[in-house]
Amino acid sequence: MELPSNTVTTVDHIVYARYILPVVPRHKLYENCALLIKDEHIVDIVTSDTAAQSFLSEKPENTHRLDHHCVMPGLINMHGHAAMSLLRGYADDMPLQDWLNKAIWPAEAKHVSADFVKAGTELAMAEMLLSGTTCFSDMYFYPDSCAAAASRAGMRANVYFPVLDFPSVWARDADEYLSKGLDIADEYRSSELITVGFGPHAPYTVSDAALARITTLASEMDAVVHIHLHETQQEVEDSLTQSGKRPVERLAELGMLSPRLHAVHMTAASTEDIELLTQHNAHIIHCPASNMKLASGFTPVDQMQQAGLNLALGTDGAASNNQLDLFCEMRLASLLAKGYSKNASAFDATASIESVTINAARALGREDDLGSLGAGKLADLIAIDLRSMAQEPLMSVSVAPKASDAGSSILAQTKSPVHRLLSQLVYTSVGNQVSHVWVAGRLLVQEKRLQNGIYERAKQGLSYAVC
Amino acid sequence: MELPSNTVTTVDHIVYARYILPVVPRHKLYENCALLIKDEHIVDIVTSDTAAQSFLSEKPENTHRLDHHCVMPGLINMHGHAAMSLLRGYADDMPLQDWLNKAIWPAEAKHVSADFVKAGTELAMAEMLLSGTTCFSDMYFYPDSCAAAASRAGMRANVYFPVLDFPSVWARDADEYLSKGLDIADEYRSSELITVGFGPHAPYTVSDAALARITTLASEMDAVVHIHLHETQQEVEDSLTQSGKRPVERLAELGMLSPRLHAVHMTAASTEDIELLTQHNAHIIHCPASNMKLASGFTPVDQMQQAGLNLALGTDGAASNNQLDLFCEMRLASLLAKGYSKNASAFDATASIESVTINAARALGREDDLGSLGAGKLADLIAIDLRSMAQEPLMSVSVAPKASDAGSSILAQTKSPVHRLLSQLVYTSVGNQVSHVWVAGRLLVQEKRLQNGIYERAKQGLSYAVC
Repeated sequence: MELPSNTVTTVDHIVYARYILPVVPRHKLYENCALLIKDEHIVDIVTSDTAAQSFLSEKPENTHRLDHHCVMPGLINMHGHAAMSLLRGYADDMPLQDWLNKAIWPAEAKHVSADFVKAGTELAMAEMLLSGTTCFSDMYFYPDSCAAAASRAGMRANVYFPVLDFPSVWARDADEYLSKGLDIADEYRSSELITVGFGPHAPYTVSDAALARITTLASEMDAVVHIHLHETQQEVEDSLTQSGKRPVERLAELGMLSPRLHAVHMTAASTEDIELLTQHNAHIIHCPASNMKLASGFTPVDQMQQAGLNLALGTDGAASNNQLDLFCEMRLASLLAKGYSKNASAFDATASIESVTINAARALGREDDLGSLGAGKLADLIAIDLRSMAQEPLMSVSVAPKASDAGSSILAQTKSPVHRLLSQLVYTSVGNQVSHVWVAGRLLVQEKRLQNGIYERAKQGLSYAVC
Repeated sequence: MELPSNTVTTVDHIVYARYILPVVPRHKLYENCALLIKDEHIVDIVTSDTAAQSFLSEKPENTHRLDHHCVMPGLINMHGHAAMSLLRGYADDMPLQDWLNKAIWPAEAKHVSADFVKAGTELAMAEMLLSGTTCFSDMYFYPDSCAAAASRAGMRANVYFPVLDFPSVWARDADEYLSKGLDIADEYRSSELITVGFGPHAPYTVSDAALARITTLASEMDAVVHIHLHETQQEVEDSLTQSGKRPVERLAELGMLSPRLHAVHMTAASTEDIELLTQHNAHIIHCPASNMKLASGFTPVDQMQQAGLNLALGTDGAASNNQLDLFCEMRLASLLAKGYSKNASAFDATASIESVTINAARALGREDDLGSLGAGKLADLIAIDLRSMAQEPLMSVSVAPKASDAGSSILAQTKSPVHRLLSQLVYTSVGNQVSHVWVAGRLLVQEKRLQNGIYERAKQGLSYAVC
């Protein structure tokens, strides 16, 4: 953006930062620049000098000087059940079938209500925001409670209403799930923050008829279909026994594979499964912590990436994680991909960062306005305070005033500052170093503190849970 | 400890805590008790009332009220190369052989010196102390620099001096490594904090003759032998090609397997390997992050535990991790064991906690004075501040004033408070919530701040690294 030197433009926030990592273009890193926010959008990223000469924030307190920080796009958590934060640690270390049948499902049948979902979603959002997540995908009962809580908190959410053939606390049968869900989609049709889509639970809990109807409706509405798919090898084997088809094959025959499909989990993925998903440009949502904790299996992310599949990350619910920190999830995704593929270069730091930003935006069909930083994008962004022992000595090297200093140090590296920074963000669990979070231009976390009453509402939810 | 009610005893520190987790006996949890420290030892754990009536700390500031905290034994990091903190992120995401041959080994040959080791060890100790580690095992060049740095910082360390058949920056040949190492063992013979042992690098870098000599000397001195073993499948295959024996078999024939042996890594462990190690009561040191990051392989920890092997954890060096936080390592160990063994009950929270406390103490031959909390044990302990969203709602439930409250809440759980607490400590990355650290009765971290000049020394090391 070029301006006459004597013009001063007023914006809402000016974020001066040591580093700005826009994610797109890949490996671009701005140093000593400033990001300008007006309303819900990014105006531009300019040099600090230009910012100082040509821009003013409307309120003085909205000029932020983040001299030891990296600013990057807000993280997007692509799969979870936010309200299950109230079931965190409910039945840890139990075998999967006992965990579901003896612990989680009975607890849900007994306790889940609109108020439970409100309280649990508020607690989960507080945790997600504090660790740098600005947008989350959710699939749980009472999706209207979740959507309302997110809207109130000012957090961006993709609410995938559940569809099952079986009754639950929320609905009786597939028809009722769909009808209630479509009402919610109507309600949030023009919402800036909330997007509603279809959340059929899994191939083994939803009939062909219901899946076919969802496929038609989703196509008409251009809405996302978000489904647990190939969570375990057992699911694949049961499907083969019952229908002679692998679950992915069955969905393909029903016409469900498309660029609107989120295939969540996809452990037990054969080469043919991967080919089918790639042909239809479906998206993989990988949840490594949950897959490991429940011993579900390993997702072949390296093979999927090589096939050209778009892959994003999710924490899954707190009951199977037990935290909602996407920085920890990135580290785990990269470590697991290397270990599983026996290739130390697999799913590198760049891949992990992209999987929670631009890849997630792509899976949402929104790479034009989410998942990267630049003029005209939505102002969903976070700052990470890099001052910690675990960031040293790299941060001291890369913040050296002259590039030549780094070259002459004992850390004269083959890698560039942007590679070092990406590595540090992925491999050193920086979720607790997130200092600032903006969603749609609103500052929701400042100096590690939740703003706008979110903390107080989360605490209220908590008191509900323990009363 | 029973005292006449009118007697007041003076101690150095009184630590009032919401919870005290002694680790031994298993699943014991003290609530609203106080731990008493005099000199380098724990005097006793008593009720808060008894503490208030019968004990005074010599200095008023050494009465600590940790009302939202869990106190537990200091964590023991059983494998690492502390000085490699200066090579953190040096060559991330590179294939293993390139990482070693093109990046790490040339960098070490060029840069490593006594001063490098001093600086890097100080930085690593700062990071370890801040995340709850009170004792670390080290295996690196210039072990005298490491021992001196640890001694000066007041941190407990097991220094395993390297032995190789090849020249390095520190010594020319096996004889010189041994002679220099034995001098260090002599120097620290009566040290309270530093224990010296043998660190033969790996079976493929040390000859039979040198390994046999180490075996004899270690037996005479009753010292530990700490060796990288079966780090990769390739190591096993190369050994079979060269000697017709698996590395573990070769060590067994050399008489090296014993309760003094630390077998570090042990991926590619066959049932026969596990049997051999079990027969000789050797100890497994498991480094999951490093094994995953370098794509070395998976260690069958579930099978090892079922065989009765003692297993402890290590972070390995920062160049292959990239952090030195044992809480993250515990989480990873439990998650990986479940995923790899396909059993969600494998290596549960109790197993992870024990692996960094009492199991580690056992591997050091020191379970009488380290790795648990109780009267007469060394006062190596940490406090974790449980106030964070990721600890909710469990912490609010389990700190409810009446046990019956928890029973009537939506979180009426099948599990006891101690299980919940262990789960939270293992699965929610609490390293950044460590608030206090004592080593041998000295307070080294208070309210998340390093005491005793450790931070300043670490920063000096840092300035060395970037100059």
